[in-house]
Amino acid sequence: MIIGKVVGKLWSTRKDEKLNGQKFLIVKTMKNKDKMEDSLLVCADSVGAGNGDLVLIVKGGSARVSVGDKSIPIDTAIVGIIDTIEVDDE
Amino acid sequence: MIIGKVVGKLWSTRKDEKLNGQKFLIVKTMKNKDKMEDSLLVCADSVGAGNGDLVLIVKGGSARVSVGDKSIPIDTAIVGIIDTIEVDDE
Amino acid sequence: MIIGKVVGKLWSTRKDEKLNGQKFLIVKTMKNKDKMEDSLLVCADSVGAGNGDLVLIVKGGSARVSVGDKSIPIDTAIVGIIDTIEVDDE
Amino acid sequence: MIIGKVVGKLWSTRKDEKLNGQKFLIVKTMKNKDKMEDSLLVCADSVGAGNGDLVLIVKGGSARVSVGDKSIPIDTAIVGIIDTIEVDDE
Amino acid sequence: MIIGKVVGKLWSTRKDEKLNGQKFLIVKTMKNKDKMEDSLLVCADSVGAGNGDLVLIVKGGSARVSVGDKSIPIDTAIVGIIDTIEVDDE
Repeated sequence: MIIGKVVGKLWSTRKDEKLNGQKFLIVKTMKNKDKMEDSLLVCADSVGAGNGDLVLIVKGGSARVSVGDKSIPIDTAIVGIIDTIEVDDE
Repeated sequence: MIIGKVVGKLWSTRKDEKLNGQKFLIVKTMKNKDKMEDSLLVCADSVGAGNGDLVLIVKGGSARVSVGDKSIPIDTAIVGIIDTIEVDDE
Repeated sequence: MIIGKVVGKLWSTRKDEKLNGQKFLIVKTMKNKDKMEDSLLVCADSVGAGNGDLVLIVKGGSARVSVGDKSIPIDTAIVGIIDTIEVDDE
Repeated sequence: MIIGKVVGKLWSTRKDEKLNGQKFLIVKTMKNKDKMEDSLLVCADSVGAGNGDLVLIVKGGSARVSVGDKSIPIDTAIVGIIDTIEVDDE
Repeated sequence: MIIGKVVGKLWSTRKDEKLNGQKFLIVKTMKNKDKMEDSLLVCADSVGAGNGDLVLIVKGGSARVSVGDKSIPIDTAIVGIIDTIEVDDE
């Protein structure tokens, strides 16, 4: 899993109908403790994350496992809102 | 999912026959709000995207899920045409 | 598989309920014999790894195979604690 | 899918017997319209590609789908020989 | 598939028991004809490769296909020892 920060939303009207009802959040992934990546990732969200939240992200088949329906074509999903990150850099 | 912009098409006559009927669009992926990547990705398209459209792209098994036939060997597919992207950079 | 070093933990209360009971460790992956990557990876752990341990990491479907339940949406897992690495650079 | 150019071949006598009969071509992937990547990819080929051909490449599970036998351990396959690429850079 | 060179071994006593009996080799992947990447990859090996061998590597689900048991959590495997690589750079 990777860590990301929700920074926005995305709307698509004309889409694969199997995606109806999915909410798409835009996320920047964390590069390290002090910095987010610049690039944007689009995640399905089933935990109710919002702008500014640090979130736990899964990719690949696990994203479909997360929404509980393997016929939904998503490859990136938010599976948790992060409370605390504890990193011991020696 | 990632965001891309359709910039072209690709034709292949001599191909895996399981790909017959698929349309192949060439896409540049979005690096950030202001910039597209330089590299080219080839996507199957089932939503009718065209040049200049911003699109939502899935990779891996989800691409086969999207076309609804797991015997079609594609690994990247356009699943939506994007209406609006809203990004809050703090 | 890749090699990583456990550097921390992550807590998430509001999460996909299929993740209940999973422990999430934060890992830096090894770039080469002398250097760790700066970026952070979140791994499920079923072998009891702790801070400072060098660990063996699997990604993708193998992570779900590792926890023995394909309905758990994880894509990165620690599958071993490394005793010894022997590298012959010519 | 990604675009590549066939630049060579690879031979392996001592291999997983499930790979018997597969032809392995060496491919450079296209970075952009004017440049190929320097790194080398090994692809199974079922469409009869040859040196210098521009080809369409799938990765992951789709490579096994392409050869029509999911018990063959390949993760990259050539699925088409490209006739034309049309890119509109604005 | 990618090309790699075996440079070492890895031992892990405390590991997922489904990995018992697997041999783990450390591999550097080939960047181009003249240069190996610096980073280290850990591969399961079922063809008897040894230090210095150039090998053919599969990733993802194909690694589990290669060992013939989908319940073994590996994501990278050596599937062949390379005899010859022929690259025509124009």
